Amino acid sequence: MNFNAIVGQSGGPTSAINATLAGVISEALASEFIDTLYGAKNGIDGIISDNLVNLTDLFSGDGTSEDLELLKTTPAAALGSCRHKLPKSVDDDSNGVYAKLFDAFEKHNIGYFFYIGGNDSMDTVMKLSSAAKLFGAEHIRFIGVPKTIDNDLCETDHTPGYGSAAKYIASVMQGVLYDCAVYTVRSVTIVEIMGRDSGWLTCAAALPRLNGRAPDYVYLPEVDFDNEKFINDIKKAHETHPNVVVAVSEGIRYSDGRYVGESNQSGATDVFGHKYLAGAGKTLEQLVKAELGCKVRSFELSLPQRSASFCLSLCDIEESFGVGKAAVNAAKRGESGVVLAYIRSSDANEYKITYESVDIAKAANRVKTVPLEFISHDHNNVTDECLEYISPMLLGEPKLKYMNGIPVHYIIK
Amino acid sequence: MNFNAIVGQSGGPTSAINATLAGVISEALASEFIDTLYGAKNGIDGIISDNLVNLTDLFSGDGTSEDLELLKTTPAAALGSCRHKLPKSVDDDSNGVYAKLFDAFEKHNIGYFFYIGGNDSMDTVMKLSSAAKLFGAEHIRFIGVPKTIDNDLCETDHTPGYGSAAKYIASVMQGVLYDCAVYTVRSVTIVEIMGRDSGWLTCAAALPRLNGRAPDYVYLPEVDFDNEKFINDIKKAHETHPNVVVAVSEGIRYSDGRYVGESNQSGATDVFGHKYLAGAGKTLEQLVKAELGCKVRSFELSLPQRSASFCLSLCDIEESFGVGKAAVNAAKRGESGVVLAYIRSSDANEYKITYESVDIAKAANRVKTVPLEFISHDHNNVTDECLEYISPMLLGEPKLKYMNGIPVHYIIK
Repeated sequence: MNFNAIVGQSGGPTSAINATLAGVISEALASEFIDTLYGAKNGIDGIISDNLVNLTDLFSGDGTSEDLELLKTTPAAALGSCRHKLPKSVDDDSNGVYAKLFDAFEKHNIGYFFYIGGNDSMDTVMKLSSAAKLFGAEHIRFIGVPKTIDNDLCETDHTPGYGSAAKYIASVMQGVLYDCAVYTVRSVTIVEIMGRDSGWLTCAAALPRLNGRAPDYVYLPEVDFDNEKFINDIKKAHETHPNVVVAVSEGIRYSDGRYVGESNQSGATDVFGHKYLAGAGKTLEQLVKAELGCKVRSFELSLPQRSASFCLSLCDIEESFGVGKAAVNAAKRGESGVVLAYIRSSDANEYKITYESVDIAKAANRVKTVPLEFISHDHNNVTDECLEYISPMLLGEPKLKYMNGIPVHYIIK
Repeated sequence: MNFNAIVGQSGGPTSAINATLAGVISEALASEFIDTLYGAKNGIDGIISDNLVNLTDLFSGDGTSEDLELLKTTPAAALGSCRHKLPKSVDDDSNGVYAKLFDAFEKHNIGYFFYIGGNDSMDTVMKLSSAAKLFGAEHIRFIGVPKTIDNDLCETDHTPGYGSAAKYIASVMQGVLYDCAVYTVRSVTIVEIMGRDSGWLTCAAALPRLNGRAPDYVYLPEVDFDNEKFINDIKKAHETHPNVVVAVSEGIRYSDGRYVGESNQSGATDVFGHKYLAGAGKTLEQLVKAELGCKVRSFELSLPQRSASFCLSLCDIEESFGVGKAAVNAAKRGESGVVLAYIRSSDANEYKITYESVDIAKAANRVKTVPLEFISHDHNNVTDECLEYISPMLLGEPKLKYMNGIPVHYIIK
């Protein structure tokens, strides 16, 4: 007996999350074991409210292969997203959310559930997988498909979406380095990069070093930040050149655990209990102004890090598409409660990624940080080994369709 | 008798200013009337300090044509820049800057001076041209070559560098619009765009409208800003959709002339007396938080607007190269005290630009603002006519050389 399938997207969007959706659609439509593939609008919220779109219909007609190609390079979750944390267990579920979800699965004869997301979304997959037995739904295959620009998921070499975000960050940093080099006036430019708990995105800011112009310093949340050491670093750089450029993670912290950007913040937290951060760059800008008195500016790379569809990594888009297909194949093999992972070839001369499924309990709610061997002894830069790990993920540029000078995207209505 | 030539770059860098430099180099090296082309490091400062580079030597050997190609898409002034305002006249020149410059011209047998820059740089060309007679240097041809992402120079249809900046802004805005659309929570996203006195760059933020997803509002410095009207605009947009996205120019002002961002600033001014601005977005973020209490964030596009060499307009790069060549040809014709201008074909069905020289006195120290017919009646958006004017300048993408996933650039040592 064949079943239908549901795919949803959850958590913060990326530039490559729709490539993964396109991979799921492509493989599901080609697979005989799935009857209809539904897309859940806004993740599990769309399942609860029965806001589904029939993706099999949408991508089966004439001319839809071009739509699927456009979807691959469309930024941000085309199905919409949500930040909905499930209750710890069915016993804690006073609103009956689990029951609503399993009712919907039954109503639509769902046998396969694909959830594309980050750490918190994997938590959702794990909980649904654990609860299935209680609802007599052990036949449903629950598959997590990784996605996050943060590259902080465990058990995978890197995450779909990271390569494109890293490419944007490295490209912007290179431009900023050229821009800052034109004047002879002493200055400090501080670029703040996303990454609440891990410095992977900030590491990418060092990549222009491979092409000749490097930022002076790169500060990661993995090591303690110290104001005095920072000012001394700047002074030292100013001894050799006037234009100092530094990259800082939004998540940098002092040794007592306080975020550098915290002083400027309201202390608000999101639904998963993460502190809402911004302001490390602005805090340091004020510090430099007070301590050194030279020209100083700071800015955040902000949303384009996860939506710059005009600066995609072909490697990332292809891998993100591939992992979507691999998720459907894992379901076909009968796997459940798993998340797909990138396994990197151990041959250092050849960059090659294969997809494997791993137990989702190993991946959910855990954060992979930048290892100390990727961080310089002075804790103010990254090693060449770090850049060798990152750079293959940035390679290649997908051919984009343009209209009016900007990329054409696909909207799922 | 043949003379040598000097080319310099001045003012804020752009992504296309080196394409213009490449045009000057290309045409000067092909022209028999120029012996040696020198590059002035950091504009007129490099002439005063005799910090010149022999561009004829640098770009004459084997394999240098590839270097020139790379230079075309290298962001920021490859010769370095300066912000050096000349004294009003030779009589006011207590430091003898004019004498130093004309001494250098004589020492290096200069017959041609090309200065690539914005409003303030055209002021330099105009003053040197006027002073030439006093120094017995009437034979020197002083040619201004326009450059500014701001598009605020008079007498030209648009400015070299604007198309690429506009392409980056429009592309980022489109990505942000897709990103913001994924959640169902009521939110306001404010994107702050460069433009001290004119809103041309902010107009470009509306371009995604042509491709299907438009920012809700676009606020320009050409019309008075009003806090109450702004909040009412947001409320109105929230009636139809949760995710409101607005673009604001850094230069938006209240009816009494105060900058919206001024309250957050130190009141510092740059050497040309312009107020140093930042903070319109942050000010409005605080306003929305206080008045509406919904999720709100703001960020500045900042330096990548003028250095995003991974998001160039082919049209802009080609025109910028062409205007550099046109400058050399104007010098050949014996013109002086002129600035090159883009003249747009009056045939609306065909976008075509030709280059003409105009009296530099007409262009220097004047600002071209966005005309009222390009601004919507409600003063919170731009008209379709405005987008028709802008969009051809964004067309095409130059083929870039990549290494390690980011563009390769050329450095003049």
